[in-house]
Amino acid sequence: MYYAGRVRRLQGEIKQPLLITNLINIRYLTGFTGSSAFLYLAPDGGTFLTDGRYGEVAGGIVSGLPGIELDVYTSGLLEHLATAIGSVSQVGLEASNVTWDFVHTLRHKTTAKLTATTGIVEAHRRVKDADEVEALRRAATAGDLAFSELDGLLMASLTEGELGDGLIATMKAAGAEQAGWPPIVAVGSNAARPHHRSGDGTVAEAGLLLLDYGCVVDGYHSDMSRTTLVGDIADPEIDKVYAAVLESNEAGIAAVGPGAIAGDVDAVCREILARHGYEDYFVHSTGHGVGLEIHEAPWVRKGSKDVLESGNVVTVEPGVYLPGRFGVRIEDMVHVTEDGHEVLTLSSKELRPQ
Amino acid sequence: MYYAGRVRRLQGEIKQPLLITNLINIRYLTGFTGSSAFLYLAPDGGTFLTDGRYGEVAGGIVSGLPGIELDVYTSGLLEHLATAIGSVSQVGLEASNVTWDFVHTLRHKTTAKLTATTGIVEAHRRVKDADEVEALRRAATAGDLAFSELDGLLMASLTEGELGDGLIATMKAAGAEQAGWPPIVAVGSNAARPHHRSGDGTVAEAGLLLLDYGCVVDGYHSDMSRTTLVGDIADPEIDKVYAAVLESNEAGIAAVGPGAIAGDVDAVCREILARHGYEDYFVHSTGHGVGLEIHEAPWVRKGSKDVLESGNVVTVEPGVYLPGRFGVRIEDMVHVTEDGHEVLTLSSKELRPQ
Repeated sequence: MYYAGRVRRLQGEIKQPLLITNLINIRYLTGFTGSSAFLYLAPDGGTFLTDGRYGEVAGGIVSGLPGIELDVYTSGLLEHLATAIGSVSQVGLEASNVTWDFVHTLRHKTTAKLTATTGIVEAHRRVKDADEVEALRRAATAGDLAFSELDGLLMASLTEGELGDGLIATMKAAGAEQAGWPPIVAVGSNAARPHHRSGDGTVAEAGLLLLDYGCVVDGYHSDMSRTTLVGDIADPEIDKVYAAVLESNEAGIAAVGPGAIAGDVDAVCREILARHGYEDYFVHSTGHGVGLEIHEAPWVRKGSKDVLESGNVVTVEPGVYLPGRFGVRIEDMVHVTEDGHEVLTLSSKELRPQ
Repeated sequence: MYYAGRVRRLQGEIKQPLLITNLINIRYLTGFTGSSAFLYLAPDGGTFLTDGRYGEVAGGIVSGLPGIELDVYTSGLLEHLATAIGSVSQVGLEASNVTWDFVHTLRHKTTAKLTATTGIVEAHRRVKDADEVEALRRAATAGDLAFSELDGLLMASLTEGELGDGLIATMKAAGAEQAGWPPIVAVGSNAARPHHRSGDGTVAEAGLLLLDYGCVVDGYHSDMSRTTLVGDIADPEIDKVYAAVLESNEAGIAAVGPGAIAGDVDAVCREILARHGYEDYFVHSTGHGVGLEIHEAPWVRKGSKDVLESGNVVTVEPGVYLPGRFGVRIEDMVHVTEDGHEVLTLSSKELRPQ
C-alpha cells in the first residue's frame, strides 16, 4: 500500500493541522493496525503518537513516512498531544470520532483553538485504489467460497451457531484473516428479525435459511446475504416475497454507476418493493460503502446525496421481513467502475438451489 | 439478570434525566445486545429507542421494564431523541461515549441544556453481583481449559495463528460464545512486542511462547496471559526475567482486597520489577477491571485512586519486554471478596511445565 503517498495527498489538501484519532483512518494513512495511536498532521510535517506497547511497530511505520516524527509515550497522553500541536493557532479534530470528554480535556492542555471537522480522511477512503479493490475482491471471493460449501456445512452443523462457525472456518481456509462479525444465520421465523443473533436454532430441515456474513482480507471487509430454502416452508407467500426482493436487488445493482445518486439507488429498490406491497416491511437502508470498515461512505439510503464515482464499493441489500413468519434479504457488493459497475459477489441467488 | 432492578436503582440515584448511549451500559441495564439503541432515563420514567431491525427484540425487553416506553424508529433518530427528551430543562449525556458531532447535532434539536456526565452507569457496573461473578468465573475456566490443552494444540498447530484458532475452539467447546479478541500468540522474539499480532511465526520448537487470550460467556469477558517454554531458548536472562515477573504478579495479587487503592497495587508490581532492574521494560499498566467490557473500571495503573471493593474483578498482569529478544507476561483475573480476594485464573505458572 502507498502510505507515504496517501499522507502526502492529505497534507496537500488540508489548510490547517488535523489531529487524526480514528484508528481506521490512521490505518489507511500509515498501515498501523494496533489499538492506540494518534496522527497529528500539518501541511508540512506531523507526529505519530502511540504508547509503549507499539513502540517497535511504530518505528517501522514512521521510517516509511518522510517528515513524520515518532513520539512513544507511556503516560500523559494529553501532554504529548499538546507538545505535538505546539504553538499553532488552530487544530481540526475529527468530530465524529472524538468524544465530548476528550475535547473538554484537550482544551485545558493546549492554546490552539479546536475546530470540528468531519469526513476529511473518509472522503479519501471512499475511492479505492487497485490494491484495495483487489483486497475487497478476495474478501468477497472467500465469502462466495463459503456459500458454495453450504451443503457440506449444513450436514456438519446442528445449530445456527455451528453453521456460522463453519462459514468462518471456510472463509479462513480461503485466505480470510477473520470473520467481519459473528455471521447472522437465521432459520425459519428467526429470519424475520433482520439482525437475529445466531443461536441454538436447529439448521437440519431448516426450511428457510437467511445468511448474512463476511470476512476480512488485508483489513478489507466483505459483506453478503443470501436467503435460500433448504427444506420446505409452509408459508405460501415465500415465493412472492423472494421474487420481489430479488427484483429489487437486481434493479438496485443496475442503477449503480458513476454519477448515480446513492439516494436514487435506494429509491429504486424501495419503489419495487412498494409495487409488490412490501414497502413497510423493508425496515433498513439499501446499502453502504465497504472498505476498511464494514459500514462506510458512500451511504445508499433514503435521501442520500452521495454521488457514486469510480472506485466506490457499495452493498445493495434490500430485504422484506414479515414478523413472526420469515424474512428475505439478498445482498451483493458492487464495485463502481469508469463505465458502470462490477458485481463482486458471485454466489447463486436461487431460492431453491438445484 | 435483574434488569428492572438495575434500572430502578439508577433511576433512584439520578437527579436529572440521563441519555444513555453507551451500548454496553444499555446491555447492563436492559439485556439488549444489538448494535443500535438509546435509553433515555428520567427519575420517573424513560424511553428505549432502537431502529426497525430490533423492533421485535426490543418489545420483549421493554415489557420487562415497568415505566419504560418503546420507540422504534426507521429514520430521523435525532427527532425521536428530542421527542423522548420532551420539555425537560436539562439532560445529562455520557461525555466519554458521545461524539462531539452528536452533541452539536442534538443541540439543534432540543431546548434542553445538555450537560456532560461521566461514569454514572460504569460506577454501578464496577461491583459485580453473584450472577456476574459466575459468568466471569465460567469465562476464566474456559480459558484455563484451553491452556490445559496446550500440548495437544501445539502438536496440531503450525503457526501462531493456528494455535490461536485452537485456543478459541477449545474455549468454545468449554461453553464460550466467542473469543474476546484474536488471541495474542507470540513465539520467540515476537513476545518482545506486548501486543504482537499472531501471524505466521512457527510454533513448533517455539522456545518461548507468550499467550494472552480470553473469551466471552453471557457477555462477560475473561483475560489471561501465560509465558512458557516449549523448547529451549538460548537467552540466559530468561530465568531471571521470569522470576521477577512472577514475583511481581504474586505480590500484586496479594495486594488486592477491599479498601486497597488500585494505584498501590500497580506500585507494588512496579517496585518489584524495579528491584530486579526491569522497571523500564514494564511498558503498560498493571491491570484493569473486567466485565461486560474487557477493559473497564477500576483501573489498576500508576496513580489510580480507584478504591477496590468487594465485587470488583480486576487483572494483575505485569510484564517485561526486552526488545528484539523476548518478553514475559503473567496475568490473572482476581475477584475482590469481602475479606480479601479470590483468583479466578487457575492455570499453572511454571516456566518449564513438567
